[in-house]
Amino acid sequence: MGLVQVIALGGVGEIGKNCTVVREDDDIVVVDCGLSFPNEEMLGIDIVVPDFTYLVQNQSMVRGVFITHAHEDHVGGLPYLLNQIDVPIYCTEFTQALIRSKLEEKLPHKKIDIRIFKHGDRIAAGKMEIEPVRVTHSIPENCSMAVRTSHGIVFFTGDFKFDFTPVDGKLANITRIGEMGLEGVLLLLSDSTNVERPGWGPSERAVTAGLRNVFAEAEGRVLLTTFASNIHRMQQVYEVAAEMGRKVAVVGRRMEQNLDVCERMGYVKVPKGTRIRLDEMRMYSDKQLAILTTGSQGEPMSALVQMSKGEYGRLQVKQGDTLIYSARPIPGNEGAIWRTINRLFNQGCKVIYESPTPIHVSGHAYQEELKMMINLTRPYYIAPVHGEPRHQYLYNKIASQMGYPDHRLFTMKDGIPLCMDDTSAHFGEQVPCGRVLVDNSGTMDGVPDEVLRDRFNVANDGIVVITVPVDTTAGEMAGDPVIQARAFSGPAGILDAAYDVLFDALAALSKDELKDTARVKHDASDVVRRLIQKRTGLRPLVLPIVVEV
Amino acid sequence: MGLVQVIALGGVGEIGKNCTVVREDDDIVVVDCGLSFPNEEMLGIDIVVPDFTYLVQNQSMVRGVFITHAHEDHVGGLPYLLNQIDVPIYCTEFTQALIRSKLEEKLPHKKIDIRIFKHGDRIAAGKMEIEPVRVTHSIPENCSMAVRTSHGIVFFTGDFKFDFTPVDGKLANITRIGEMGLEGVLLLLSDSTNVERPGWGPSERAVTAGLRNVFAEAEGRVLLTTFASNIHRMQQVYEVAAEMGRKVAVVGRRMEQNLDVCERMGYVKVPKGTRIRLDEMRMYSDKQLAILTTGSQGEPMSALVQMSKGEYGRLQVKQGDTLIYSARPIPGNEGAIWRTINRLFNQGCKVIYESPTPIHVSGHAYQEELKMMINLTRPYYIAPVHGEPRHQYLYNKIASQMGYPDHRLFTMKDGIPLCMDDTSAHFGEQVPCGRVLVDNSGTMDGVPDEVLRDRFNVANDGIVVITVPVDTTAGEMAGDPVIQARAFSGPAGILDAAYDVLFDALAALSKDELKDTARVKHDASDVVRRLIQKRTGLRPLVLPIVVEV
Repeated sequence: MGLVQVIALGGVGEIGKNCTVVREDDDIVVVDCGLSFPNEEMLGIDIVVPDFTYLVQNQSMVRGVFITHAHEDHVGGLPYLLNQIDVPIYCTEFTQALIRSKLEEKLPHKKIDIRIFKHGDRIAAGKMEIEPVRVTHSIPENCSMAVRTSHGIVFFTGDFKFDFTPVDGKLANITRIGEMGLEGVLLLLSDSTNVERPGWGPSERAVTAGLRNVFAEAEGRVLLTTFASNIHRMQQVYEVAAEMGRKVAVVGRRMEQNLDVCERMGYVKVPKGTRIRLDEMRMYSDKQLAILTTGSQGEPMSALVQMSKGEYGRLQVKQGDTLIYSARPIPGNEGAIWRTINRLFNQGCKVIYESPTPIHVSGHAYQEELKMMINLTRPYYIAPVHGEPRHQYLYNKIASQMGYPDHRLFTMKDGIPLCMDDTSAHFGEQVPCGRVLVDNSGTMDGVPDEVLRDRFNVANDGIVVITVPVDTTAGEMAGDPVIQARAFSGPAGILDAAYDVLFDALAALSKDELKDTARVKHDASDVVRRLIQKRTGLRPLVLPIVVEV
Repeated sequence: MGLVQVIALGGVGEIGKNCTVVREDDDIVVVDCGLSFPNEEMLGIDIVVPDFTYLVQNQSMVRGVFITHAHEDHVGGLPYLLNQIDVPIYCTEFTQALIRSKLEEKLPHKKIDIRIFKHGDRIAAGKMEIEPVRVTHSIPENCSMAVRTSHGIVFFTGDFKFDFTPVDGKLANITRIGEMGLEGVLLLLSDSTNVERPGWGPSERAVTAGLRNVFAEAEGRVLLTTFASNIHRMQQVYEVAAEMGRKVAVVGRRMEQNLDVCERMGYVKVPKGTRIRLDEMRMYSDKQLAILTTGSQGEPMSALVQMSKGEYGRLQVKQGDTLIYSARPIPGNEGAIWRTINRLFNQGCKVIYESPTPIHVSGHAYQEELKMMINLTRPYYIAPVHGEPRHQYLYNKIASQMGYPDHRLFTMKDGIPLCMDDTSAHFGEQVPCGRVLVDNSGTMDGVPDEVLRDRFNVANDGIVVITVPVDTTAGEMAGDPVIQARAFSGPAGILDAAYDVLFDALAALSKDELKDTARVKHDASDVVRRLIQKRTGLRPLVLPIVVEV
């Protein structure tokens, strides 16, 4: 029996783009395949996906990708993986309903191989076996994933909380998790996102009371924004709206699509007559209306942001409206979200974003829930995932308070294999791993790093283009050089001064040197770059162009 | 008697660049002159200052700028105002000590006219009179500012909290504020930053206990980062360090400068032998050391951020270090701050950023303190300042719960005068007002909006430069056009395709059209822009250059 290797291609030391490999000999299973969102330094980037080189290199060994749930940070990388290798996707029927259309849209010429499992199924994958276990989270049909290896179970908690009053009434299968603990968990890979929060998190059901209060006090229409995948939240809005005599309209493409699917499949139960179309709103008074909308992260093209700017054609906000901000900002989005909220206030819409009775609860386990998961699974080794280094540090501190010695606690890094047998573990050699930055240009390739660097330079200090017409046969200038700057803001006269040094530098070149376009470009950009930096401290991108005449 | 006008040139509907005008007939006084920090959409911008056009246009009326305290959002705009008009600055001796060197550095050829006041002084300013009143905040010698007009007092709370155990023992002059209430406050302009926080804020002194806990439990050195102006916080670090047998070194230019000034003037009292130079650290064990550092906002060039990257020459962090994050993120800086903290964890430095005993308290009043200020001043009119629309909304809601009718509560906007006499008030006509975006190029002018737009376009989608060599005398192409792209990432072949359409478009031009460089530029950029947008959805900046040969 060889070692079991666990390799995160994303999702440790960070929150987002979860994708983890379990490998035993020549068999590989992948758990989740997510995306993450760019930070403010990644200019022009829309999403970030893992670098799948390791899976491409070992594609003959990959038995399947097993999906815990349909959130973007667990499924959003699938099109980019399937674009490179053929591999079956295993997931619940619900997850399939949410992801299939997106996959087919992105990969129109590809046959998508999705295989449905139920919680409790045991799926063979080479020497390994995978068993999804039901746990609660902020989306229906969520799974922990047990991967049975020769050395014991590698147990992925997936995203979870222990919610004893979930909106759909489907409880976590705690007993089955405990049985796995008895059977022998080699490694627990635990969600650690909320490890900073003491105690036990509130049930999703707690939001009902918060919604009731806002609905009762609202002078006019009630709007609510949340993630388009937060199906349970939307179920609660339907219920409270029906109870309070309000109809519910939905705006935002992704939210409408998700609700349509969920209502059809029975994952959302709409009280009779409660959901209306947008054009039916005029039949009701403001106090009879509620509206579900996308835009909880301040996304520029979302319905809510456009409403806040008065630019949404289908619906306007107005004096007397109340918006419930029923979500948590993804770090980095705070600025855009507050700007949206402030614009709504300026339009007379009151925004509720904090409340003594909760209007949002997290889908992730708090400290005591995390400890309970350790207690149930009784793992030999532990490694926190789905967290930044600060979360990993604190999680391991808590595990050590539960008696775990340091050599059984690991702080994983993306791309570094954790290699284990029954009683020993060590980190292996780094495998190919990284991030691929994708924009919305329609290609699925990443934007190269040098393009990002150029964007950063131009965004800060602008670009200066130098054009030099040269008769390369004669080795002579064929006209005057041109300097043009864009996105550049220097003191008056700086470009004239740059032109003078450029002119002198070109005049100093011999015929042979002028025939050498690389030389011309180098000298021209060098003198201009130096002058600007010396006079202004600015470092614009300098682009020399030699036009051969 | 004419109306009294209050005009915010910055600082209402936003947090930052506080600058407010009080005008009675031909007399103008200005309270504060601050800067704000750019949001993530303001590419390449370092600071934002108010547009001072209104003061420039009325400079003969401006009697003085009265400074409440030395925080950047209250003084950082001064160099940009003084660059445009001559006006005396009135402030405390302490404030002067912190700002004079910065003003002289920025305006080397200008005589800076700073006049020192003490709390309780009455300073004549044309028909008006200004009286600074001592209130507590997170910096020494802070003031509220009472501006006496013919219609009553316009009372600026300035940034404040009611701290009954301030670190320097200097209490707010509550009685004097109450006397002003008896005398007659026409308008209260109140800090509203913390209006979302219920109750009464903790005293700055509360931080001592939090620091003691961390110092006691730290395995090695203790580092603490806070704002360079948070003098009281640094005083507490000195005291706790001395108590615990640790020496304190300081890194970060601005923090060192501020401490030098404050220690010299007696605003910080260093326990004997506690402060050491950085090069003396080697004489002590890790458990005998504490370090104060700048970088609490994740500023790229700060000591802390460079230490987190292992790029700070003077000091490295190491395993066993503990950093206390003793500050609050300015909105928009969260991403940079968390990245810094995570990098520190990766280097083995434990970071304390939350704690059951506080390691940071706010300098701004909570709800009950805000109510107490209303109670003391008993104003006729109220307008919250130093807050975003969400804060203004909530503040006015609280004031109305205290019995204020709507017509006495105002939600001011930058540049819209609030015009009052004893018993009536209305908004006047907008005056010139706006924001000036300043970068670090050394010029004091703003970066124009079109430069920002270009930066935004290039940052998202790159730049495509088209160079067309033309013999404008003959009306002929003088060589082949050139297309070059930077910061651009399109699918393979897109630039070749663009070249083809460009070539065809140029070939279609007549001799007369080729002589018209504007026409050539237009046609060339038009076909290229359209093709790229159609094929990729990208909208790069397209820059056409005609080189006349």
